[in-house]
Amino acid sequence: MKVLVVNCGSSSVKYTLFEMDNEKKIAWGIVECIGLLESYYRRQTAVTEEKKKSVKVASHTEAVELIINDLLDKEIGSIANIDEIDVIGHRIVHGGNRFSKSVLVTKEVKKGLKECFSIAPLHTPAHYAGILAVEKMLPGIPSVLVFDTAFHQTIPDYAYMYALPYEYYEKYHIRKYGFHGTSHNYVSQRAAAMIGKPLNELKLITAHLGNGSSITAVEKGKVIDTSMGFTPLQGVVMGSRCGDIDPAIIAYIIKIHPNYRNSEALNTLMNKESGLLGISGISGDMRSTVKAATEGNKKAKLAFEMLCYSIKKYISSYYGILNGIDGLVFTAGIGENSTAVREKICVNMHAMGIEMDTEKNNKPSSKERFVSTADSKVKIMIIPTNEELMIARESRACICMRT
Amino acid sequence: MKVLVVNCGSSSVKYTLFEMDNEKKIAWGIVECIGLLESYYRRQTAVTEEKKKSVKVASHTEAVELIINDLLDKEIGSIANIDEIDVIGHRIVHGGNRFSKSVLVTKEVKKGLKECFSIAPLHTPAHYAGILAVEKMLPGIPSVLVFDTAFHQTIPDYAYMYALPYEYYEKYHIRKYGFHGTSHNYVSQRAAAMIGKPLNELKLITAHLGNGSSITAVEKGKVIDTSMGFTPLQGVVMGSRCGDIDPAIIAYIIKIHPNYRNSEALNTLMNKESGLLGISGISGDMRSTVKAATEGNKKAKLAFEMLCYSIKKYISSYYGILNGIDGLVFTAGIGENSTAVREKICVNMHAMGIEMDTEKNNKPSSKERFVSTADSKVKIMIIPTNEELMIARESRACICMRT
Repeated sequence: MKVLVVNCGSSSVKYTLFEMDNEKKIAWGIVECIGLLESYYRRQTAVTEEKKKSVKVASHTEAVELIINDLLDKEIGSIANIDEIDVIGHRIVHGGNRFSKSVLVTKEVKKGLKECFSIAPLHTPAHYAGILAVEKMLPGIPSVLVFDTAFHQTIPDYAYMYALPYEYYEKYHIRKYGFHGTSHNYVSQRAAAMIGKPLNELKLITAHLGNGSSITAVEKGKVIDTSMGFTPLQGVVMGSRCGDIDPAIIAYIIKIHPNYRNSEALNTLMNKESGLLGISGISGDMRSTVKAATEGNKKAKLAFEMLCYSIKKYISSYYGILNGIDGLVFTAGIGENSTAVREKICVNMHAMGIEMDTEKNNKPSSKERFVSTADSKVKIMIIPTNEELMIARESRACICMRT
Repeated sequence: MKVLVVNCGSSSVKYTLFEMDNEKKIAWGIVECIGLLESYYRRQTAVTEEKKKSVKVASHTEAVELIINDLLDKEIGSIANIDEIDVIGHRIVHGGNRFSKSVLVTKEVKKGLKECFSIAPLHTPAHYAGILAVEKMLPGIPSVLVFDTAFHQTIPDYAYMYALPYEYYEKYHIRKYGFHGTSHNYVSQRAAAMIGKPLNELKLITAHLGNGSSITAVEKGKVIDTSMGFTPLQGVVMGSRCGDIDPAIIAYIIKIHPNYRNSEALNTLMNKESGLLGISGISGDMRSTVKAATEGNKKAKLAFEMLCYSIKKYISSYYGILNGIDGLVFTAGIGENSTAVREKICVNMHAMGIEMDTEKNNKPSSKERFVSTADSKVKIMIIPTNEELMIARESRACICMRT
């Protein structure tokens, strides 16, 4: 069985074609900078090296066409016929209050997704365009939507509600949704395998640290809280997102800056101009920040410390509500690769049984591994995430349930 | 030595006259509902019962005049001459970035305070009016300002900065300030006395839970973090304040409700219509909320659970950044009186060494006391706060330093 996973971001389309019998990737790639003067297309297969070229791609539809034509290409393609693809899995960022688990795409589902546009205006229209384009290119092949918000559906009401007037929940569905669910789900399962105990006997904290970051408390395989909220802005300090702030600051900003009395301007400020970038003034990228900090840049050092401190606070908070933990997982770009961030977070945490082996932490590797000391009560793990595989598994499961 | 402590709220003036030789209260009282059709005046002394009457009081100035005339009254007064008062201590909510410790009032100081109006528009103008009125009524007696923000001055930059563009800190002084400092300071000192160790050997978490609530991490007598922020809105769920929310919710609200593109409307929503009141729809008062929850009201139960959960998260978070604690203190209206809130917070916290003795917790008392089990690693304490005495001590210290 083959599954094509499609991930339409605001200006990119990523894809992976899986052979599910062995869960191996057959072909994968990405079209970036869609709609800009120049777009880029990178592609690779299990048997060929990565190739990169400039392309002209005006829309998500054109990007999907380019990708599928290439997959079917007689010379460089990986499949001979569209029927070889059994199901397409689409990654969807925000399921709002409509979608609590993966669903097969129907007319009704598409209508529901359209109604989610306003809640994630950067992502959902791109997802929608991707779904239509895939339907056009691969007629008759079923599509499944896999939601970043779905794994968080088990969060109890006292944790997902905001203490605003109740009608904001009832009328406008303002509540905590949580994101990166597919990643938190994948690494939780891997963590259980690494520890060698069933997931439903474990208490875990999973830290997905990338451009966007979220921390999740997982009890017996079920999420009980997560740091992102109604949108992916809430929680820890991120590359260009501010994370938690006093909400009264916004009331103050729109008083002193009337041009911020505008939803879009506020979202740009808090999502694109804040975080590491806003504090350091240099970059939203962790590698550049750590480099600048090492070279003596004080604002970069502050930005680095703020980001690590905010993560430390969430990990501690979830340690408390879980009443102790068995494992702490780092994943995603920063979580997998930044030794400095991981070390800064784990220093002075032994009261919670968290003790890092700094030598193990410093050793470069791209594999799943433990970085805690032998005596550490809490196992600290680095687990490369694999959202695509998780989406492929979910899509297959959705199809198998149907038949 | 006698110190008069004056606390001008937005629509009230509270006062306490102390004899500092024994730190006993001589006279105290409050004028409430200033500027409304009917105001109320309650007064009491060490030798007389509380008396309450309706009065007409149009301004903070009139309230101060009423109070001081009464203190000097030949029949019901407590002092014969204004010269008996050595110093007046004023409680000031927000010192902004100008005031990091208690100061003697001078022309310059008054000017500086005026420049803090915009940062706490509900409180600072009332404080200012009170200072002028006291100066008029008690000419020649020195006044000291004691700031709620001062005890939090030791918070490190990575904890007080928000990850907004750096200029918001430089130009507009947007940072975490913290509040209830006088109370957190007082109960920290008392906690050390109760535990029987010097404060600078202890790690404490102090939970000031009242209409407004804040949690503070105190290491060796110095605050290292606190839950309130730029304003007293941030942090845990409160009577009518929302506490932490995803800041993108506000961008969403002003999109769907254009009438909220207004600082005051937003502040009213988040400060006056949210919290327990917003969720339960019944009341911002904890007693009414617990009663309604007990009687089966689901929204009241949810509001109660949300408030306790948000506090639990902050306590856990500070446990982590302190890398373990010696004591957990409950103080202020809810902290001192709500057995239900204290129990809900402390349940299932033994991974952090927090074990409550529910029998002790249930026993009514207005005294300082331990409510942890004999085996609990962390001492849980209930300590009635005494901000007035702390302000009197600070004011005396300020005068003694001068002479």
